Amino acid sequence: MNVHTRRSDCPISFALDFFGDRWTLLIIRDLAFREKHTFSELLASEEGIARNILSARLASLVADGFIEKTPHARDGRRREYHLTERGRGLIPVLVEMIVWSAGEDPQTAVDRAFLEEAMRDREGLIRRMTGRS
Amino acid sequence: MNVHTRRSDCPISFALDFFGDRWTLLIIRDLAFREKHTFSELLASEEGIARNILSARLASLVADGFIEKTPHARDGRRREYHLTERGRGLIPVLVEMIVWSAGEDPQTAVDRAFLEEAMRDREGLIRRMTGRS
Repeated sequence: MNVHTRRSDCPISFALDFFGDRWTLLIIRDLAFREKHTFSELLASEEGIARNILSARLASLVADGFIEKTPHARDGRRREYHLTERGRGLIPVLVEMIVWSAGEDPQTAVDRAFLEEAMRDREGLIRRMTGRS
Repeated sequence: MNVHTRRSDCPISFALDFFGDRWTLLIIRDLAFREKHTFSELLASEEGIARNILSARLASLVADGFIEKTPHARDGRRREYHLTERGRGLIPVLVEMIVWSAGEDPQTAVDRAFLEEAMRDREGLIRRMTGRS
């Protein structure tokens, strides 16, 4: 968390400080929605994150407890990244961003089935995705 | 909308492009939650937006139809800003950011009554704030 950039105690300002320059939330997105769990998978996302930025953000997210780094399920020499419960706490914010963008962006690549579920049963979708009851 | 910064058709990336460097959403916050509607009220917010940035963002938000600029209710020589229906479409994202920050930030200044309502009856709160039925 970038405590040094804190500008107010406002919760929206706090969230914007955490989101920072977009890369953090795009990494969370890949882990939450895209089944990307290795460094090379995350590096390959279409927004073109730089290797050093990805590396720094992963380290920071691990240090802050939003993701965990574990041995790869099939290759113990590699590592993979997964959201922790704390990291899954960001999913409701991401879902709301998806729903908003779907209504604003004519070029959106949003998954229609996902969107319909978010509109019809938002709470159920979030419960299922976060593993919360 | 910063079409030139578009990096993908992903809805989360689209929302992050729109949020940009934080100032846009802080202006939306002031209009949505803080009853700030004049240039000088918006300029006085604690995060310290610069006058030229505020001016540019307001013009851009008016041009994109998120806010409207109207004569001041009590002084026709002054102008005030209000969210349009399109602008109120951002309120669900802001509510989710507030709920998330409240759980993460021990120094948060979130209004407890607001938070309790967001947890208990999120849909009702958003309906009331957006004027949607």
